[in-house]
Amino acid sequence: MAVAEKLSETQIGEAVASLDGWELRDGKLRRQFKFQSFVEAWGFMSRVALLAEKMNHHPEWFNVWNTVRIDLSTHEVGGLSNFDVELATKINALL
Amino acid sequence: MAVAEKLSETQIGEAVASLDGWELRDGKLRRQFKFQSFVEAWGFMSRVALLAEKMNHHPEWFNVWNTVRIDLSTHEVGGLSNFDVELATKINALL
Repeated sequence: MAVAEKLSETQIGEAVASLDGWELRDGKLRRQFKFQSFVEAWGFMSRVALLAEKMNHHPEWFNVWNTVRIDLSTHEVGGLSNFDVELATKINALL
Repeated sequence: MAVAEKLSETQIGEAVASLDGWELRDGKLRRQFKFQSFVEAWGFMSRVALLAEKMNHHPEWFNVWNTVRIDLSTHEVGGLSNFDVELATKINALL
């Protein structure tokens, strides 16, 4: 299994610039998503849950009705890692 | 379909006293749940999602790894309603 590698400030800047819709917030990668209904929001979350479990890299996330807010970081490196960029990229590919 | 009825202060106190594990926080009913893994937390959330959609009454909730935090309130009454007590009761019955 791959090992999480902590990103440098420069790498974080490059990642945020390249990831559509994601911003750096409190040292985490954050994106908020809006859907047409809870059913659509939940469908999206279900797909993210399977991606996350497969990577063994899980989001912090919040949902209310049609809104989903995802925060990504990597506990074991105390910051952001390649895993966060990979998961954010896979989440964007779902849209 | 049933209509949400706003709870009085007295009714809220009674509800909190009768609902195992739930507390009043910022005018909402809150309970936090801990599981053995993300898979177990997600399984629980999936069951809550179906209950909520069936009631057309949805939680605000946060998940990270094995932890799920649920806040219940009723937007259309500007506080707590019988729907929140009903959903909290159904969630407790899942455990």
